[in-house]
Amino acid sequence: MVVDNDLAGRYPAKAHARRVAAYIRNQLEGFNGDGVIYLEAQKTRLIEDNDEPMPFRQRRPFFYLSGCLLPDSYLAYDIHADELTLFIPPIDPDSIVWSGLPLAPDEARRLYDVDHVRLTTELNVTLTHIASLSQNKAIAFAIAGQVSSETTFLPFADTDFSILREAIEETRVVKDGYEIELLHKANDITAKGHIAVLQNAKSAVNERELEATFIATCIANGCREQSYHPIVASGISSATLHYQKNDDSFIDSETGRKKLNVLLDAGCEYKTYCADVTRTFPLSGKFSEESRAIYDTVLQMQDESLSMIKEGVLWEDVHSHAHRIAIKGLLNLGILRGKADELFEKRVSVAFFPHGLGHFLGMDTHDTGGKANYQDEDAMFRYLRVRGRLPAGSVITVEPGVYFCRFIIERYLQSPELSKYIDTDVLEKYWEVGGVRIEDNIHVTSDGYENLTSAPKTVEEIESLVA
Amino acid sequence: MVVDNDLAGRYPAKAHARRVAAYIRNQLEGFNGDGVIYLEAQKTRLIEDNDEPMPFRQRRPFFYLSGCLLPDSYLAYDIHADELTLFIPPIDPDSIVWSGLPLAPDEARRLYDVDHVRLTTELNVTLTHIASLSQNKAIAFAIAGQVSSETTFLPFADTDFSILREAIEETRVVKDGYEIELLHKANDITAKGHIAVLQNAKSAVNERELEATFIATCIANGCREQSYHPIVASGISSATLHYQKNDDSFIDSETGRKKLNVLLDAGCEYKTYCADVTRTFPLSGKFSEESRAIYDTVLQMQDESLSMIKEGVLWEDVHSHAHRIAIKGLLNLGILRGKADELFEKRVSVAFFPHGLGHFLGMDTHDTGGKANYQDEDAMFRYLRVRGRLPAGSVITVEPGVYFCRFIIERYLQSPELSKYIDTDVLEKYWEVGGVRIEDNIHVTSDGYENLTSAPKTVEEIESLVA
Repeated sequence: MVVDNDLAGRYPAKAHARRVAAYIRNQLEGFNGDGVIYLEAQKTRLIEDNDEPMPFRQRRPFFYLSGCLLPDSYLAYDIHADELTLFIPPIDPDSIVWSGLPLAPDEARRLYDVDHVRLTTELNVTLTHIASLSQNKAIAFAIAGQVSSETTFLPFADTDFSILREAIEETRVVKDGYEIELLHKANDITAKGHIAVLQNAKSAVNERELEATFIATCIANGCREQSYHPIVASGISSATLHYQKNDDSFIDSETGRKKLNVLLDAGCEYKTYCADVTRTFPLSGKFSEESRAIYDTVLQMQDESLSMIKEGVLWEDVHSHAHRIAIKGLLNLGILRGKADELFEKRVSVAFFPHGLGHFLGMDTHDTGGKANYQDEDAMFRYLRVRGRLPAGSVITVEPGVYFCRFIIERYLQSPELSKYIDTDVLEKYWEVGGVRIEDNIHVTSDGYENLTSAPKTVEEIESLVA
Repeated sequence: MVVDNDLAGRYPAKAHARRVAAYIRNQLEGFNGDGVIYLEAQKTRLIEDNDEPMPFRQRRPFFYLSGCLLPDSYLAYDIHADELTLFIPPIDPDSIVWSGLPLAPDEARRLYDVDHVRLTTELNVTLTHIASLSQNKAIAFAIAGQVSSETTFLPFADTDFSILREAIEETRVVKDGYEIELLHKANDITAKGHIAVLQNAKSAVNERELEATFIATCIANGCREQSYHPIVASGISSATLHYQKNDDSFIDSETGRKKLNVLLDAGCEYKTYCADVTRTFPLSGKFSEESRAIYDTVLQMQDESLSMIKEGVLWEDVHSHAHRIAIKGLLNLGILRGKADELFEKRVSVAFFPHGLGHFLGMDTHDTGGKANYQDEDAMFRYLRVRGRLPAGSVITVEPGVYFCRFIIERYLQSPELSKYIDTDVLEKYWEVGGVRIEDNIHVTSDGYENLTSAPKTVEEIESLVA
């Protein structure tokens, strides 16, 4: 558990600005450091055809260099002078009547790790001043499509609308201690949500009740936003990877019996930092024989993947190893037949584990810098969202799964080359299992890893919480 | 309570299309009926800088003539032939693997009150066919900014991008029986949420816990979306009309004592139809003397407003009457002084009841057709969102309130002309009350009204539920 005092300090916005500037200096030949990094917060926007504001989601590049969740704000970092200035909206007297007092500049100076706080009305004179200090030879760096029409870069010698996005996306891959604590906090509250769901699983009769329990636990504990739309998939729906309905009865309409398992993929966001956690549990409080066998296989896939993780490991190797464990497990159960190496070479396990082992995690659920290759002709790696070696300080999800999804497996059964590897008689017993996924959030370190996820995971813990 | 069977039939999309077409025929001189009404569903859109879809909110004009919640769909109503055609997206084999089977045309034909279901790929040939039936003399009616670039109106003699929006907005004011049932259903689930909040109020220690309770109750009962961002305002924050923070402790940080009241303004959405309900309750389970006095005044404002409501009543009259009751109540308590008529003429009660008495309600929380005049120089009517006479079948919120908001009242206290009407010594006792609002959803009928809101409202009900 995180002691909240670890987060008592300010979000390290200045350090992030320096790291982003250093990336630009390294990449941009001939750049002498005279330049300004310019970023904008998300604007207040209305719902289409409506007078209500859209749900607010802060722009991540802006937050990364400011730590500020206010809408309609701007940020300028003078690279040469190493000075970070936040521009917040001026007070609108009419709005005070309806909404109360907004944040004052003095208070903002205390809250955020910036050198100056000014009003947004002072933006252009400030930019002009920064440009004049370099005899107007400075470059303005901004993100294409994220510059308001009232902002002017005219006093600058040049503008660059491409490298800043890349610089921030690459810099974000390696987290600092403060970011790790934010991810810890999101994970701790997410764990409370998963535990509450396990405790309510036996009395609930519909997926939506467990979704309600999860979301309520997050809100009550201070996380108003979910990292992503939760997946609460019961019975065979748990084999549908992007299941979003979350509205099905726990009684199977065909058999009249209670469904076996629920897959819950849900995590909340704490100050833009995302948890992303999946657990699979039996609605009866006791895994069926087949469910338990698959659960044990997936847990072994995760355990062995985790044991490989440390700075510099090749993510493709970890992903491949998880496939080898899946093959071993499915061979043992008799669902697959043939030689393990041949099954691996023929990519047969992709029928049961079709997605990637994990993705970077941070201010986005699928965080920046992963360099996926969705055109990869090798089916085993096509959906792998991270390619290459993992740096220390990166945070990655490790989320193996085994699914019995008819739409996917039938393509293999219809293949003259591949169908021979699958024993359809044995397979028949497993359709009801649906899908099992176990997902934790892993902080990569120089000599191993730190597991940020504290949600219950062993069969014993899960069965005792559901019971 | 609504029996769900009332909603077993299909949403009356065809009847809505006919009413909208009739409006256009009436308003558009020389229009002979050869024309097509064209509408688009909301598109699937991604969150900026992210690969997750934005939260989906169906376009109301499209839903009104289709009853369909699918994204990326189109609708065409051939006015002359009286034929309604829904166009749904074709099946994407890759997406089945991840998301399962989408809705098939046959199933859509059964679900929706339309004459034909086609695929979106057949849109332009269908439009061409409709146009050709009138020797290409037909007009295409659409909403500006809501026509995809791939849609072509070339076969039509003319296009009209203005009247359709107006026609739908005006037609939506009068609801049919099916819409009333949807609003009933949203209100019934909203009432469950309000009751759950009252029951949890004593054990909760922070506003966010009650927000969590409300949202969870709605989701668990089948309403995944809120009509609007809930307001959960404790203590003096309840006087901030647009309070959104919902994250404050129930202990007043200055006095160390528990705050007096919570104002909960929250309602959920059922199939695009919105409930909008406000209740105010004491955290101790027992209203303080001052809170009770204000609560009784506001409840009387609402009761007397309701008794005036029937087809044809002038909304300004009801709003004015609520002000007169407020003045009477505040005079009785000694907060105001002077003659009631003079206080009314000087608009002094606007200091305590600054917003309008209510707004139309339907697929939007602030529904269409209200014809507000925000430029009105009369402060009493400036924020009244509905002007003129209420038709039978309209649904309107009746939401009087009395607030002790320093930002607002101090403007009056500083006025040489108006300050004499307010007794600051008496007022001093009431700041702690914050604000009290009571809001119900009212279906206007030919001889009176039907109150769609079933959330507890009497002092006795509220105190016994909190206790």
